[in-house]
Amino acid sequence: MRIAQLAPPFVPVPPTTYGGTERVVSILTEQLVERGHDVTLFASGDSVTSARLVPIVERALWYHETDNNDFTPFWAIALGKLASRLNEFDLVHNHLDFLAYPLSRVAGCPLVTTLHGRLDLPALTELYQEFADVPLVSVSNAQREPHPDANWVATVYHAVELDQLPLGPGDGGYLAYLGRISPEKGLDVAIRVARRSGLLLKVAARLPLPHENDPNAQADRVYFDNVVQPLLDCPGVELLGESDTRRRAAFLGRAAALVFPISWPEPFGLVMPEAMACGTPVLALRAGSVPEIVEDGLTGFICDDEDGLVDAVRHLPEIDRRRCRAEAERRFSPATMAAAYEQVYTRLLARTPDARVSGQHSGGIRALDRTTTPEWSGSPARR
Amino acid sequence: MRIAQLAPPFVPVPPTTYGGTERVVSILTEQLVERGHDVTLFASGDSVTSARLVPIVERALWYHETDNNDFTPFWAIALGKLASRLNEFDLVHNHLDFLAYPLSRVAGCPLVTTLHGRLDLPALTELYQEFADVPLVSVSNAQREPHPDANWVATVYHAVELDQLPLGPGDGGYLAYLGRISPEKGLDVAIRVARRSGLLLKVAARLPLPHENDPNAQADRVYFDNVVQPLLDCPGVELLGESDTRRRAAFLGRAAALVFPISWPEPFGLVMPEAMACGTPVLALRAGSVPEIVEDGLTGFICDDEDGLVDAVRHLPEIDRRRCRAEAERRFSPATMAAAYEQVYTRLLARTPDARVSGQHSGGIRALDRTTTPEWSGSPARR
Repeated sequence: MRIAQLAPPFVPVPPTTYGGTERVVSILTEQLVERGHDVTLFASGDSVTSARLVPIVERALWYHETDNNDFTPFWAIALGKLASRLNEFDLVHNHLDFLAYPLSRVAGCPLVTTLHGRLDLPALTELYQEFADVPLVSVSNAQREPHPDANWVATVYHAVELDQLPLGPGDGGYLAYLGRISPEKGLDVAIRVARRSGLLLKVAARLPLPHENDPNAQADRVYFDNVVQPLLDCPGVELLGESDTRRRAAFLGRAAALVFPISWPEPFGLVMPEAMACGTPVLALRAGSVPEIVEDGLTGFICDDEDGLVDAVRHLPEIDRRRCRAEAERRFSPATMAAAYEQVYTRLLARTPDARVSGQHSGGIRALDRTTTPEWSGSPARR
Repeated sequence: MRIAQLAPPFVPVPPTTYGGTERVVSILTEQLVERGHDVTLFASGDSVTSARLVPIVERALWYHETDNNDFTPFWAIALGKLASRLNEFDLVHNHLDFLAYPLSRVAGCPLVTTLHGRLDLPALTELYQEFADVPLVSVSNAQREPHPDANWVATVYHAVELDQLPLGPGDGGYLAYLGRISPEKGLDVAIRVARRSGLLLKVAARLPLPHENDPNAQADRVYFDNVVQPLLDCPGVELLGESDTRRRAAFLGRAAALVFPISWPEPFGLVMPEAMACGTPVLALRAGSVPEIVEDGLTGFICDDEDGLVDAVRHLPEIDRRRCRAEAERRFSPATMAAAYEQVYTRLLARTPDARVSGQHSGGIRALDRTTTPEWSGSPARR
């Protein structure tokens, strides 16, 4: 199958440190190449892949030295490069969200989108009314909740690099926090839970970016300065900075547990299966994808508040670390994810008559459009 | 000719008050219909047109009661609606800027873009390197300056509604300011020029919008509060609020002059030909399109600083108001603009083999792509 993978150009594929989406795209791309597909990866030029690389930009955007944080032109550039080569692919797998949807209507081959972000945002209701024909993959069932009637074709859980995240001993005597420092990720909760449990909290995290005009970055910075920083003045917290994959394995593998005290509908918390791969149970607050990833009492504990998390720390010895590893291998392996996406691709292609042939016979864009998805005729734009 | 006009959905077409782009799209659309073309207008649903209207949204976005100011999803909706109907048009005229460029590569008919905004912004260099094949219309020659090597196919000056802006007497004894209140539009300069000249300044302007997360709106608000408001406490300035077309004609027609003290490369200052249509000379600072629109000594004065503007006020009696009107009629009439765009369309279509036919023969998207513009083979993406 000739497959295009369209990745965000924020960080390289795979990322050297932070970058969940790019990490998943890398795992999928390498798996698909291994399985014999002809894969073209649209990503930043400093990406490393065994697929054919089409650079969207020379260097990943987050490494550009600029005050500019309006990356929209780069979205257009990425989609423009894809548009120039659409005839080379049987199927396009888009990880760039909704700006690719208009193109999908004239692409001449199926364009399927995995949504990596949250969907409970303004204006997305109008968006998914318009694009009721565009095939979507959710990364958890919870992610679909704001738009249950969109054209969901599958839920495919993210995979983690199992061979780079071996079963660890869990003998470090600390709780681990790994991820962005944002109000909704709850580092302050993690610090308090560790303190109340008499355990050290080790924090592997990038400090908030100083992008002045980005409201999210501003909020992260305010949260760090006003909420987190005061808590760091007391002992019991160790700030480690961003972790690469090798350090991540050691960091997670020696932890007594990962604390994941989120307060937002995170579509897929990649660090949960990463911890499980290292045999490390997850202590999480009930939100977003958590109940789909963690099995309460088996691979960690799902709690409703801070007190629940403190209580759960005492029950950690009940968790079998080898069972955590086994569940990660069963549910979150690269092969499992790649096989799931292969099924999605095959189903979409089976529903799609050969666009080029039908284009010849009926002579027009309309025929090319129609083949994109069978939901086409139900699109609001056609009514 | 079957023409699609793609307007921004911020305000209705035509706008009831503020909205230069939507006003120009309205004038062009009505002219094209009058000239016998089959025109489809993609715009907000509260637009009024004699063309076929395809609503992008029910109500114009600026009239939505929401804190949301990320309008990107509506760009995708607009382009999605266009993509659904591409087979219905011989040519698409895009006023939505660069997010339409990827679509232009698979549209199967020419897609020409009139750029309404400034082009000296970050990331646009990479953008126009990628989209060197996309045909562009500039609204002034000055606008092209940051990207001289882009695929410019014409400069077409905006038209004004001459019949709604009749020659006025200029007997009001005041200077007029009309437009947004932004630092780069120089209302503070206008106030000081009027004061130093012993003339009343009448200001027809919308107060800055309270969109908290939009850095431009924030800057406008800060400028208004800190720079303009203190100047309003003294007499000699009259704040009138936004003007509709009828009130605009009276407001401009009775003014001794329009003050246009901009300090930014404004691509096309629509209020300049509006004033000229009313017989009112323009006192402008030298920036952006000013030297292309105003003829120094004939339809106003082009100055280099505030002192120059004060000096120019004394020379206003040298300007013949009927000559201002005549120049507006000659250069900025709806018929002049529509004829210029017709030429652009005809030239682009002449260079474009029938996409549908060539698509049938060579059987593919590639063939459809290639017909979009003759510059195609030089596109960086193809190298």
